[in-house]
Amino acid sequence: PCDLTGWWENDLGSRMHVLKVDSEGNFSGEYHTAVSSTEKPIQPSPLVGSQHLDKDGQCTFGFTVNWKKFSDSTAVFVGQCFTGDNGDEVLQTSWLLREKVDSLPSDWKATR
Amino acid sequence: PCDLTGWWENDLGSRMHVLKVDSEGNFSGEYHTAVSSTEKPIQPSPLVGSQHLDKDGQCTFGFTVNWKKFSDSTAVFVGQCFTGDNGDEVLQTSWLLREKVDSLPSDWKATR
Amino acid sequence: PCDLTGWWENDLGSRMHVLKVDSEGNFSGEYHTAVSSTEKPIQPSPLVGSQHLDKDGQCTFGFTVNWKKFSDSTAVFVGQCFTGDNGDEVLQTSWLLREKVDSLPSDWKATR
Amino acid sequence: PCDLTGWWENDLGSRMHVLKVDSEGNFSGEYHTAVSSTEKPIQPSPLVGSQHLDKDGQCTFGFTVNWKKFSDSTAVFVGQCFTGDNGDEVLQTSWLLREKVDSLPSDWKATR
Repeated sequence: PCDLTGWWENDLGSRMHVLKVDSEGNFSGEYHTAVSSTEKPIQPSPLVGSQHLDKDGQCTFGFTVNWKKFSDSTAVFVGQCFTGDNGDEVLQTSWLLREKVDSLPSDWKATR
Repeated sequence: PCDLTGWWENDLGSRMHVLKVDSEGNFSGEYHTAVSSTEKPIQPSPLVGSQHLDKDGQCTFGFTVNWKKFSDSTAVFVGQCFTGDNGDEVLQTSWLLREKVDSLPSDWKATR
Repeated sequence: PCDLTGWWENDLGSRMHVLKVDSEGNFSGEYHTAVSSTEKPIQPSPLVGSQHLDKDGQCTFGFTVNWKKFSDSTAVFVGQCFTGDNGDEVLQTSWLLREKVDSLPSDWKATR
Repeated sequence: PCDLTGWWENDLGSRMHVLKVDSEGNFSGEYHTAVSSTEKPIQPSPLVGSQHLDKDGQCTFGFTVNWKKFSDSTAVFVGQCFTGDNGDEVLQTSWLLREKVDSLPSDWKATR
């Protein structure tokens, strides 16, 4: 089965560490981003999420990263596990990054 | 300050119940969706997420909904609290829904 | 049938003017945005797009707005016509805004 | 300068042919998709779009593909030209695919 526990690295060089996944599929961990839209120094940031526990190893999952240590933004990722040609597990994800805006009229541009 | 604890309802009639937000900003709860892309009966679904604890009441937040009770999909939401003209708190969110696909070549169409 | 020819206004107060739609469904026009992520004065901007010509009046369509008059960004919109309860035609759209970035490593944050 | 005229191929094996870009940056062409969310046979599909004409060769652009030959969907792409390490031009794009839905209550799931 797909188990997100452990370390993962993406194409941009960001890494995440997922601690033990519980029997409900919930997990927490830490996200070490390689990129940032702010000027402040990047710091490892807490994440919480949830995965399916399908037997076939191709589960979908999602998690939230709270960038509070250096930013007022929040990111969410959603994706699926796959097994690559060489037997390695690969995660395919999409994400949204929400930046804090001053007021509702600026809401349209808050998410990328 | 913005506190997600409680019940929220969106324009589509979906409702979510956020249980107590802890001192780190983490929370869990239940999402009662009014819409679904599957045929199976909708059931309340567990959510986990995280919010900032800004003093100004305009925090950003994110959460994951695991639809495991009736689907193999996962959704993530990211957004921000605002206070409307009438004093009511309003959440502005964006979301991604990941459906499970059979294999990597179908990955392109898995997320909406 | 759905015909985009004419003036449309969205919730943010942006307006667009679609000139004649040709027999292939292609059209051009001008977009008067009410919001901008740049500091320069907003100017009416050219758009080009294409729509289906379904008989049922619920066509999908898409168009590109080139903000060259005051920015190096480009936006795309995709949507569908609907007829509201009062008989009025309503356009539901989603959009992506691409800002120019310096180099490939910044590509991840270019689109919102 | 960046000039989209010619043939381009993406990671999924889809190819597009952009005919001459005019002095305003407008262009038309044909998109040969390698993937589809419908069952009907894929056919080359018309596209129209617009690009900036920046001197630095890193222009942003957008275009609409009308899938009318085998579907009632529409796609939009937005992106930017880059020059890769080997001197080749590379296009980085994001896209939205709008499928036709029956009525407004289904609008939430129409775009991926």
